[in-house]
Amino acid sequence: MLALVYDRELTLREDYPEVHAAAGEVVLAVRVAGVCSTDIEITRGYMDFSGVLGHEFVGTVQAGPEHWLGKRVVGEINCPCGRCDLCAAGLPNHCPNRSVLGIAGRDGVFAERAALPEANLRQVPDALTDDQAVFTEPLAAAIQVTRQVAFGPGCRVVVLGAGRLGQLTARVLAGKGLDPLLVDAHGGKLAIAARAGMRTAPLQGYAPDGRADVVVDATGCAAGFDLAMRAVRPRGTIVLKSTSAGLAPMNLAPLVINEITVVGSRCGPFDEALEMLADGAVDVSDLVSARFALRQADAALAAAADGNHIKVLIDVAAQ
Amino acid sequence: MLALVYDRELTLREDYPEVHAAAGEVVLAVRVAGVCSTDIEITRGYMDFSGVLGHEFVGTVQAGPEHWLGKRVVGEINCPCGRCDLCAAGLPNHCPNRSVLGIAGRDGVFAERAALPEANLRQVPDALTDDQAVFTEPLAAAIQVTRQVAFGPGCRVVVLGAGRLGQLTARVLAGKGLDPLLVDAHGGKLAIAARAGMRTAPLQGYAPDGRADVVVDATGCAAGFDLAMRAVRPRGTIVLKSTSAGLAPMNLAPLVINEITVVGSRCGPFDEALEMLADGAVDVSDLVSARFALRQADAALAAAADGNHIKVLIDVAAQ
Repeated sequence: MLALVYDRELTLREDYPEVHAAAGEVVLAVRVAGVCSTDIEITRGYMDFSGVLGHEFVGTVQAGPEHWLGKRVVGEINCPCGRCDLCAAGLPNHCPNRSVLGIAGRDGVFAERAALPEANLRQVPDALTDDQAVFTEPLAAAIQVTRQVAFGPGCRVVVLGAGRLGQLTARVLAGKGLDPLLVDAHGGKLAIAARAGMRTAPLQGYAPDGRADVVVDATGCAAGFDLAMRAVRPRGTIVLKSTSAGLAPMNLAPLVINEITVVGSRCGPFDEALEMLADGAVDVSDLVSARFALRQADAALAAAADGNHIKVLIDVAAQ
Repeated sequence: MLALVYDRELTLREDYPEVHAAAGEVVLAVRVAGVCSTDIEITRGYMDFSGVLGHEFVGTVQAGPEHWLGKRVVGEINCPCGRCDLCAAGLPNHCPNRSVLGIAGRDGVFAERAALPEANLRQVPDALTDDQAVFTEPLAAAIQVTRQVAFGPGCRVVVLGAGRLGQLTARVLAGKGLDPLLVDAHGGKLAIAARAGMRTAPLQGYAPDGRADVVVDATGCAAGFDLAMRAVRPRGTIVLKSTSAGLAPMNLAPLVINEITVVGSRCGPFDEALEMLADGAVDVSDLVSARFALRQADAALAAAADGNHIKVLIDVAAQ
């Protein structure tokens, strides 16, 4: 089948082996997939992954238990073992034996077909388009911030980075009644956020005042974390959302001096994400900035990495 | 007066200007001072400080309000403005206008005399020796960990670094009924901890298992923080205690992947530290590994920096 494969280099392969679904898994025909910064970081060495890239998708169940056949679904990306201490403790997303769709030990969705455990599936409500539902995974990751940090009324929140995850996080926070300030160097991205009702500030003119209660760092770079340390108040909280490959020069002394708490935040609740999409609490229609056929999936990755796009989609069904 | 002064270089000065106590301040005759890693980091550029070094001390009040005269005291090192938002919020240690004894905007205690606000003083109980009382400030910093993080019963705790702060932190945690594992490369430091009843592990043979609930990083180096990220469990907590000058190559991705919380931790409660010393909850008698006269204060700093000492004291009264 056709698939975008990373194995020390990125290759669009026509002859990638057909998906094999293990016991308890279904085969999905991928309809639409979304490009995430994690995909780009993997091509820079992050997670030491090799295989089919991609973890954001909407698909149709093509093989598996009868009650799932033909259903339009999204899917949780972590595939836990179900038997370890962390699974028993209700933290399956942190199962040390897990595979992660297109990230660790499991082929992803930049392909005609993919496999996932049945337990990971969530049916997509009919009212949602594929282009909305494909945001379920990153929106869940944005929602996770609100599960980990208590945002009191009047909480001063700054979101650094108006890319894929920053836009969604700011919208989730706004949906919870907060008034986050979204900071980015890219005027076009800020304009989209501003049209969606967000407060925005260009990075070039942003002077961090050390008074934010919570700063969400969705920049994916060390300079962003450094800015977060200067923007947050003493005893405030930085939520670290994005990861990157490689080492960058850093000094964490401000965390100690100002007794800052840093909360690492990863995957979130799919059910709440689907609800927020379905009831219109978060609008994502303005976030798709380019789309490519699967045959141009490598170009989709390049576009997503160029700094000028928010969400780049891959139309798998269309190819 | 005689003082150890840092101003881009370290100089023992005979002719340093006599201490001037501002309104509300007292003049202290320093009896004993302790060398902290922060003093060493300042000589490497940390905090961009110039002036008399030193912030851990026991002294005798020499000038000030009559009820303090002749009293043996220790003193809180942060001197807040008392008028700003953070002071009003009960966070005077984070006052943006504060000076900090021997660290920021205020001469320290590696000198014959020093000045501090009267409000900062705590009288030393007669039962405590100078060599015990001089640990009040670093012990308070160790206690601060227990004020910021909830340690449940059976909590698995690892303390990285068996230096000055690591030793004290492990002893405070043991005093709270926990059973911390203290990790260091230095066999002599671990032996001291082991004799005090601590569990210890040599760094050379330590394989972090990613199962600790809380890891206290008291190493003061990026490699220590990296080790902490590998030692802590998913959703666990790293307490960052020590600071250093300069940048080091780091990658914070494990914080995100494992949703780790990092808590920066600095100064702590003097009253509780004095109580723990007075009631014997924490023994510090085995932690003094060298002592120098004020005239050899530069040698005291060099000794404290050589990696083989725990607490180095400066006998100011003796010179």
